[in-house]
Amino acid sequence: MASIRALALNCTLKPSPAPSSSDQLAREVLAELAEQGVDGDLVRVVDHDVRFGVSTDEGDGDGWPDIRAKLLSAQILIIATPIWLGQPSSVCKMVLERLDAELSETDAEGRHLTYGKVAGVAVVGNEDGAHHTIGQVQQALNEVGFTCAAAGTTYWVGEALHTVDYRDAGPKPDTTGRTTKALALNSAHLARLLAEQPYPPPGTGGAGVGPSRDPA
Amino acid sequence: MASIRALALNCTLKPSPAPSSSDQLAREVLAELAEQGVDGDLVRVVDHDVRFGVSTDEGDGDGWPDIRAKLLSAQILIIATPIWLGQPSSVCKMVLERLDAELSETDAEGRHLTYGKVAGVAVVGNEDGAHHTIGQVQQALNEVGFTCAAAGTTYWVGEALHTVDYRDAGPKPDTTGRTTKALALNSAHLARLLAEQPYPPPGTGGAGVGPSRDPA
Amino acid sequence: MASIRALALNCTLKPSPAPSSSDQLAREVLAELAEQGVDGDLVRVVDHDVRFGVSTDEGDGDGWPDIRAKLLSAQILIIATPIWLGQPSSVCKMVLERLDAELSETDAEGRHLTYGKVAGVAVVGNEDGAHHTIGQVQQALNEVGFTCAAAGTTYWVGEALHTVDYRDAGPKPDTTGRTTKALALNSAHLARLLAEQPYPPPGTGGAGVGPSRDPA
Amino acid sequence: MASIRALALNCTLKPSPAPSSSDQLAREVLAELAEQGVDGDLVRVVDHDVRFGVSTDEGDGDGWPDIRAKLLSAQILIIATPIWLGQPSSVCKMVLERLDAELSETDAEGRHLTYGKVAGVAVVGNEDGAHHTIGQVQQALNEVGFTCAAAGTTYWVGEALHTVDYRDAGPKPDTTGRTTKALALNSAHLARLLAEQPYPPPGTGGAGVGPSRDPA
Repeated sequence: MASIRALALNCTLKPSPAPSSSDQLAREVLAELAEQGVDGDLVRVVDHDVRFGVSTDEGDGDGWPDIRAKLLSAQILIIATPIWLGQPSSVCKMVLERLDAELSETDAEGRHLTYGKVAGVAVVGNEDGAHHTIGQVQQALNEVGFTCAAAGTTYWVGEALHTVDYRDAGPKPDTTGRTTKALALNSAHLARLLAEQPYPPPGTGGAGVGPSRDPA
Repeated sequence: MASIRALALNCTLKPSPAPSSSDQLAREVLAELAEQGVDGDLVRVVDHDVRFGVSTDEGDGDGWPDIRAKLLSAQILIIATPIWLGQPSSVCKMVLERLDAELSETDAEGRHLTYGKVAGVAVVGNEDGAHHTIGQVQQALNEVGFTCAAAGTTYWVGEALHTVDYRDAGPKPDTTGRTTKALALNSAHLARLLAEQPYPPPGTGGAGVGPSRDPA
Repeated sequence: MASIRALALNCTLKPSPAPSSSDQLAREVLAELAEQGVDGDLVRVVDHDVRFGVSTDEGDGDGWPDIRAKLLSAQILIIATPIWLGQPSSVCKMVLERLDAELSETDAEGRHLTYGKVAGVAVVGNEDGAHHTIGQVQQALNEVGFTCAAAGTTYWVGEALHTVDYRDAGPKPDTTGRTTKALALNSAHLARLLAEQPYPPPGTGGAGVGPSRDPA
Repeated sequence: MASIRALALNCTLKPSPAPSSSDQLAREVLAELAEQGVDGDLVRVVDHDVRFGVSTDEGDGDGWPDIRAKLLSAQILIIATPIWLGQPSSVCKMVLERLDAELSETDAEGRHLTYGKVAGVAVVGNEDGAHHTIGQVQQALNEVGFTCAAAGTTYWVGEALHTVDYRDAGPKPDTTGRTTKALALNSAHLARLLAEQPYPPPGTGGAGVGPSRDPA
């Protein structure tokens, strides 16, 4: 059975050692992945000097290349982000923009390096914004080559116009905890499938229907 | 090798026989899926008397149950939608709401009937709105149990504030045609993987880590 | 002082007499508008036979023209919608698509008939999706010519992954009630300003800078 | 007639002197505002050391307080942003998060300092994403107290899956140029109305209906 690793990126706006609800939920996801036999790392992006940009390396001390190296050796990426104004954080957007560079990177057979990697999304906020934040992050990750498993998300928010954070209100085993388990179960399964049987190279006829035509 | 079928739902606002750009793009997707050995059906939703609601059958001549039967026998769902005001069509939203009912349906092992089904998204508009429409549809489909393959989308829109439709401007083999091929290649591959090795039932320990704990 | 009327459209999926949380919040908005001297009507869209389309009249018994007549005699439009899958309802989307037709309608001076009308948004759901739903509706309404006042929205949702409705949980005077009051106060003020001093016709030089150049 | 100033924030990812399509469109907006008698400034946010955060001043050399001072003396804010992955830029999101701090700032009568300021949105990308980006930015700006005028947006994107930038393809007087004129005409009008007749303080009865009741 393929060995699977996970990388969780905490996209809070606050550098360490400030407490972070996204950190708490990311750790819960990694704990559930560990139950599925998946080892993982957790990186708080804002602690590293990641630069705005859309390349794999913006140079001059850019913190992204080290994070990217961890990503390339993982089969599961977890994006953990707080919600601000009902939307993913600017740090999360910065990460997604850096992943845009992967559209220019391919293996020897023409597949993006992200192909076959599974992405999960974990979102926390005081109140509202989780579904939209999940939608934004999933759309961007799918666009740059990741696959999201069924039920591949988890989130917590409080009642409308309230102000309590997950790190004070959580954990929530009957609601968020349940979706976190499903995220881990399905993402680990899908990551193993794709590690063992990768997407075919573009231009592949597939399904035994004969030689390839135009490269995709 | 698992036999795979596709169902494409055209979510245009216009009943037959009005020409439909979504219809054209949906047919192109089905043609590429056929190249991957996948047979498929195409349904123009607005031709059937589908009711607003969030159940599997709203009764009284509701057109959804027949469409749902086709869906349940397919392994790939293609949502083809026009863009209005930069967003998916109301007919598309009506379909997604009907799929919300699947959150109450499970097989004998507790898995949603949508688990293991792969969803692709095909979007056309005069100008702008494709990425957002894809994000909306992917988020909703993932939420109700579908998995979207890497590169599992295709779209066409014209330049900003222009008014030409895809059925007049297309086909576009070098841009939209290329993404259509990738959608078909990856979705067929993923659907076969998940047909042969389904997501584990909730509560499964997975990865040989012992008996299950809490059901997910 | 200009006399101001409001029209609230309840975009629930459920026909009367089914209870509706959107109905409850819409009534609260109208009550607060009444405190600002604004009379209003409430229409449950799905009780009328509104057709899919993007024209002002789809013919053959279409229910939209009557609703549109009410809209044209109002200065404030309130869109009240439930959340499904974190998004506005399909009925809400159908209404926005019908309003798209207003982009083809102008007064004698070339202004859209929606110009000068103020739009407010009221959203309810079990849990999550309010900010996004507001964003979708505001973007579409602004695009077809409405102006949204500062704080021109109100909403209620419960904690993540909970299932209680506003009509059981509400009213919530300290949270949703507060935003409802602000919506009414600011929307009534802005509607009066724009009724008394309409946007200038396109092509107007404005600000005393001389004759118009290109018509906008 | 009230004197009106505008501040345009260019949210490109690229520091000066790199060419920027957002810069070009922002300059076109300011030129049209000048035709309406509105003077303005243009700031490329990434040239200043703006920090991630949700306060008015993150300290330690944070570049935001100087930009905020310009904002507080302006009546019109223009957010100009590129599109990445179909969404507003991370720099744009960072700006919106800094504006979140304004929800804690009020004048002597309890109104946010943003009340009465008008916000316009200008968006450029190679292809697709403008409507969604506009929706994201408008929702966030409205939430923190800005008002968006009817037709208060302008944008350019190319045909789907194309790669030419606005600074090479533009200007586009018949499409984007027309919406830019409308943005300037309506935003200047609305800013003057709100400068002369501000939103009433919260808790105001308004409309001659007597003394205030609960503060909003």
